[in-house]
Amino acid sequence: MATGEQLRVGIIMGSDSDLKVMRHAGRALRTLGMEYGIHYEDRVISAHRTPHLMAEYAATAAERGLRLIIAGAGGSAALPGMVASETALPVLGVSITDNPDVMNRALGSMIGMPEGKPLAVFQGPAGAFNAGLFAGRVLMATDPGMRAAYEAYELNELLSPVLGKDVSLRELGAEAYLNQPPATT
Amino acid sequence: MATGEQLRVGIIMGSDSDLKVMRHAGRALRTLGMEYGIHYEDRVISAHRTPHLMAEYAATAAERGLRLIIAGAGGSAALPGMVASETALPVLGVSITDNPDVMNRALGSMIGMPEGKPLAVFQGPAGAFNAGLFAGRVLMATDPGMRAAYEAYELNELLSPVLGKDVSLRELGAEAYLNQPPATT
Amino acid sequence: MATGEQLRVGIIMGSDSDLKVMRHAGRALRTLGMEYGIHYEDRVISAHRTPHLMAEYAATAAERGLRLIIAGAGGSAALPGMVASETALPVLGVSITDNPDVMNRALGSMIGMPEGKPLAVFQGPAGAFNAGLFAGRVLMATDPGMRAAYEAYELNELLSPVLGKDVSLRELGAEAYLNQPPATT
Amino acid sequence: MATGEQLRVGIIMGSDSDLKVMRHAGRALRTLGMEYGIHYEDRVISAHRTPHLMAEYAATAAERGLRLIIAGAGGSAALPGMVASETALPVLGVSITDNPDVMNRALGSMIGMPEGKPLAVFQGPAGAFNAGLFAGRVLMATDPGMRAAYEAYELNELLSPVLGKDVSLRELGAEAYLNQPPATT
Amino acid sequence: MATGEQLRVGIIMGSDSDLKVMRHAGRALRTLGMEYGIHYEDRVISAHRTPHLMAEYAATAAERGLRLIIAGAGGSAALPGMVASETALPVLGVSITDNPDVMNRALGSMIGMPEGKPLAVFQGPAGAFNAGLFAGRVLMATDPGMRAAYEAYELNELLSPVLGKDVSLRELGAEAYLNQPPATT
Amino acid sequence: MATGEQLRVGIIMGSDSDLKVMRHAGRALRTLGMEYGIHYEDRVISAHRTPHLMAEYAATAAERGLRLIIAGAGGSAALPGMVASETALPVLGVSITDNPDVMNRALGSMIGMPEGKPLAVFQGPAGAFNAGLFAGRVLMATDPGMRAAYEAYELNELLSPVLGKDVSLRELGAEAYLNQPPATT
Amino acid sequence: MATGEQLRVGIIMGSDSDLKVMRHAGRALRTLGMEYGIHYEDRVISAHRTPHLMAEYAATAAERGLRLIIAGAGGSAALPGMVASETALPVLGVSITDNPDVMNRALGSMIGMPEGKPLAVFQGPAGAFNAGLFAGRVLMATDPGMRAAYEAYELNELLSPVLGKDVSLRELGAEAYLNQPPATT
Amino acid sequence: MATGEQLRVGIIMGSDSDLKVMRHAGRALRTLGMEYGIHYEDRVISAHRTPHLMAEYAATAAERGLRLIIAGAGGSAALPGMVASETALPVLGVSITDNPDVMNRALGSMIGMPEGKPLAVFQGPAGAFNAGLFAGRVLMATDPGMRAAYEAYELNELLSPVLGKDVSLRELGAEAYLNQPPATT
Repeated sequence: MATGEQLRVGIIMGSDSDLKVMRHAGRALRTLGMEYGIHYEDRVISAHRTPHLMAEYAATAAERGLRLIIAGAGGSAALPGMVASETALPVLGVSITDNPDVMNRALGSMIGMPEGKPLAVFQGPAGAFNAGLFAGRVLMATDPGMRAAYEAYELNELLSPVLGKDVSLRELGAEAYLNQPPATT
Repeated sequence: MATGEQLRVGIIMGSDSDLKVMRHAGRALRTLGMEYGIHYEDRVISAHRTPHLMAEYAATAAERGLRLIIAGAGGSAALPGMVASETALPVLGVSITDNPDVMNRALGSMIGMPEGKPLAVFQGPAGAFNAGLFAGRVLMATDPGMRAAYEAYELNELLSPVLGKDVSLRELGAEAYLNQPPATT
Repeated sequence: MATGEQLRVGIIMGSDSDLKVMRHAGRALRTLGMEYGIHYEDRVISAHRTPHLMAEYAATAAERGLRLIIAGAGGSAALPGMVASETALPVLGVSITDNPDVMNRALGSMIGMPEGKPLAVFQGPAGAFNAGLFAGRVLMATDPGMRAAYEAYELNELLSPVLGKDVSLRELGAEAYLNQPPATT
Repeated sequence: MATGEQLRVGIIMGSDSDLKVMRHAGRALRTLGMEYGIHYEDRVISAHRTPHLMAEYAATAAERGLRLIIAGAGGSAALPGMVASETALPVLGVSITDNPDVMNRALGSMIGMPEGKPLAVFQGPAGAFNAGLFAGRVLMATDPGMRAAYEAYELNELLSPVLGKDVSLRELGAEAYLNQPPATT
Repeated sequence: MATGEQLRVGIIMGSDSDLKVMRHAGRALRTLGMEYGIHYEDRVISAHRTPHLMAEYAATAAERGLRLIIAGAGGSAALPGMVASETALPVLGVSITDNPDVMNRALGSMIGMPEGKPLAVFQGPAGAFNAGLFAGRVLMATDPGMRAAYEAYELNELLSPVLGKDVSLRELGAEAYLNQPPATT
Repeated sequence: MATGEQLRVGIIMGSDSDLKVMRHAGRALRTLGMEYGIHYEDRVISAHRTPHLMAEYAATAAERGLRLIIAGAGGSAALPGMVASETALPVLGVSITDNPDVMNRALGSMIGMPEGKPLAVFQGPAGAFNAGLFAGRVLMATDPGMRAAYEAYELNELLSPVLGKDVSLRELGAEAYLNQPPATT
Repeated sequence: MATGEQLRVGIIMGSDSDLKVMRHAGRALRTLGMEYGIHYEDRVISAHRTPHLMAEYAATAAERGLRLIIAGAGGSAALPGMVASETALPVLGVSITDNPDVMNRALGSMIGMPEGKPLAVFQGPAGAFNAGLFAGRVLMATDPGMRAAYEAYELNELLSPVLGKDVSLRELGAEAYLNQPPATT
Repeated sequence: MATGEQLRVGIIMGSDSDLKVMRHAGRALRTLGMEYGIHYEDRVISAHRTPHLMAEYAATAAERGLRLIIAGAGGSAALPGMVASETALPVLGVSITDNPDVMNRALGSMIGMPEGKPLAVFQGPAGAFNAGLFAGRVLMATDPGMRAAYEAYELNELLSPVLGKDVSLRELGAEAYLNQPPATT
């Protein structure tokens, strides 16, 4: 197992409807060898509906051992920035959106943080996954097992599939490639 | 004097650089007979830099006698919505912007409040002034003196100037109107 | 029953197709104890197709006992601002939209009101509901029964559900949470 | 003189600050032989500040002999559409803007008129001038003198200058052309 | 019959896929008593694919008796402006769009015409219908029959339905109104 | 056959999901007589996942005989610009988008290339096809057979269908045209 | 000298005010050894004001020996696309803008060309220069002298200055670098 | 001194014109006790003009001891994402912009990174400073001296100034506050 037996990453979101995007953050952490409940946690915490819970979560995160917080929000998207203002841990904000091709309200809210309270911004499902990978890049500075898992991920899930598809497409051309029967499992 | 001798309206903003917009809220209140320090107050309160002050301000506003809060913010613009979430007073948010013709990040953040925490949104200097007038419309339900001041404002500062300019422009036409010597005071 | 037996809030809209959004304003009022036909009314009034009806509605609203007007419109969205210009009641404008994540034409029209005629702006279904809650925040200053209803709403429908979902999500994690069987009623 | 001795075109705007754009509408009319005070008029009429004047102006425009109305407005830009809703004359709306390269709030408001109330939209100073020319295209159907003025305008002010500049630029190339001494008058 | 027995209005579009929007222009003309093939025509003419046909159509439109041209286009939307540059008839441009709530590329292209070549702009299906009504407003200056048809349209199809729906909604409220069984024909 | 027996055009894309747009580039090339595998190739090459493959592809493209590269990308869309920076061949970038009516992130990324590294930009499926035609316009300077194919394409697939539809629409009018039974093959 | 003694590139624009952007296209061509009046020409040609000149220019460009056309336009920006529709030469469109950071109307118009008429799009001063470089990339396929000039440009004006600045900045750090006295010539 | 005597953070940018924004990243690092040339470095590295230098920089950053890379870019903004693709260090991208209130092209490019290559995004001068603070939040996990510097910064430069301004503004009100004589040093 790649990481020490300790909670490292908190994934929080304003509503359980954000899970369709935020689940990808946990998927990335598991890819790097972290396990739910041991190395990371998922929470529903709302800036506007549970402000006291939010303040307490942010204030106690470091002493609970967390090393990073990944916070997703849509709409006004106050959660990530408010958490960043009440902790000194690195906070990664994920803009929840149905259409990642649009720079939406939540992105504007997150990217507009004032000088003094840093928030690192990501967008959409790919951004949630990448926030998980980013957390891995920070944590693996002191975790060789996680570094090996990261390298395996890059080789097996990023590089190889592209190279494989390139070989097929180059041989077949677009029309034949698109007419291939779907792969059977 | 139009209003009872009691603090009624709190004007708050995230930074003193917001005063260039937010001063217009107080100007509207004074037009309706409210005086600074007696009927309304101006405060610098930052959601991200002074979250505890913000929470305390919101939680005690009603017991201090405030009837409405006007909150201005730019960028992430978390202040108005966070205040709205910690008080049951009506909160008016003013989007700070240098270019009111653009629907900016702060407007997007404010207009995106989730169901359950209402925030009434205004934009720019005209919006700050209108937020003050809106507060007057609420307060004058129980304050006949303020109602009279409001009616005088509408007659003397909205209706009459337009009618006067219309008479001049109609007589002169655009070119002569624009070539008039500036009025002397 | 929370409010006195008198019409307090008028909900108007330019077209009955706006009901898909505007129905949420009435839902909020009922949550606070107001009843249809007694404490609030729904009307179809078009700025462009029935300008005389609009002018008469605005001009007589205060004497009919209304305390606030909630006006929804899409497209050019002239209705809320025109009503605000012909009454001295507080007017809440709701931008009708199929995609609340976009700052649309109707929002731009409403947020651009000139200095002197205040319009408080909300957007989409959540905004329509919040406009109703905002009206409640104004009215409950003089209505203790409504204040109690408001506090119950905040506790039972905002705070508790988030806390409950947080307990479940924290225990289950995202994947198991999403795989729960749907609740039976 | 090109047009009969009768008022034909009304140019209205919500504020005299709109004259910087709207003066170009009158300039176009004068290019086609219409004179201020005889064939067209300039007025300041505000939808939100003088709604009754606006309604009366629209309702009596046809009986006063007007054939078209050119209405400029910025911000919420309710004026052009409200006038179009209270007259059956053709109405041309001009979006006031400091930056014609942006599709601003006023344009969104005007272009969003509901089915049933037509508003022809133009934007910025060039659009104000073009609205005047468009009025000329409508009026010259029954006015041969204006047609001749229109044809002279197209030849002398549109075609010839472009051809002249093309000859110079082709001979000189960009750098020498830009280094020409300014023309003396 | 409302109009003289002569072709008055040309409706042109860059592609037959634009008919889903442009058919509404003809529907408006028929509402005012004009008949297809007698008083107006529909044409497919592409600025980019049939530039010579476009130039010829524009150059001969006036001598064929046309009084206005309604031109629809999407994408680059060069057609309306190019036609306006080669005729002195009034030209109404309709921006083709699937989402009228967005100020799209075609609108930007049309609204950006340079000084000297006027193009009156409308958008989407409602805009196409309104362009037809606008043509009627121009033509009925000399056609009393069409004026009567126009007044009947305003009374029967704009004013009355709104008033009728207002009566129903006011009586029923939003929830009961939305739960009405669909009208049977 | 129109082109010499040599690879001329490389079509590359960041993901095989881009094929839904990029297949149209190859369709255009085939329309001009080029054959897959002989005159052009399709490749999956990712700027971010296979940077070394990308660099090698760009660096060797000219010596492999390629005359132009058509590169499609969505999202960050780094591929077309990075390829343009590592070859001196003309590079055509195609912005991948589900909604060509919107100027999306990929378009912004491509159109923002710094001075010194040219990238010719196209958007969406029509843009991919047009990028193929553009390549043909470059290549046919030295290929008379391709020029003839190009002229036949313009006549048979651009001009004639528009003229044919114009004849039908003009005769039938919009309503009857839309009610035609679908053509049988 | 790098290119044969023959006109190769036509630079056209809708107005001489576009020269502030379009002059950079010629600057790029001169960097590659082409001379004004011998290898390229600058012209003012307006789609809307001189449509016949535009059509003639496009129709005769190939027989005059031109190999590419670079066409700049702002606003409606019909020129580049209309020229592309009347010639089979490759056409490069340059969106004229004061703010290259914005995707403006002219860009939307150009990028929206329909399938069948290709237009390669660039934006702003850097885009005008890059359009010139792109023309060079096409022409140097058959012109070794131009290829050498291109390689020298890349080495001396792109690569070396960046490397030189990197050495200085690395040594000095941001503050000292910014406080350097301006270079003397 | 707060950090070990080793290079920790690389600040890179595509052009020295980006220093007006990127200098603020170094300012934040110095606030936390890091010194130029010892703990961090500034570099000019261009994705499009020096791709090989960029690839080498990214590939060797970890072995040179760097713990994070802060990369600024405007326009196409390929640099941050390309660096993130060639290193496994955490990379922070800063969108260079003159107007932080706008979500510009560079932001769109950075926020659109594909799944698998994480890039944490910041915008404008405040974002550059915050990227520096974010780096400090990561590094101080293992550096108690930096943690103390961070806490001092929060107390002295974030919290105290807001509280001080609040006291003054509350006492003076907006008008008197704005009329204060400027502070003397």
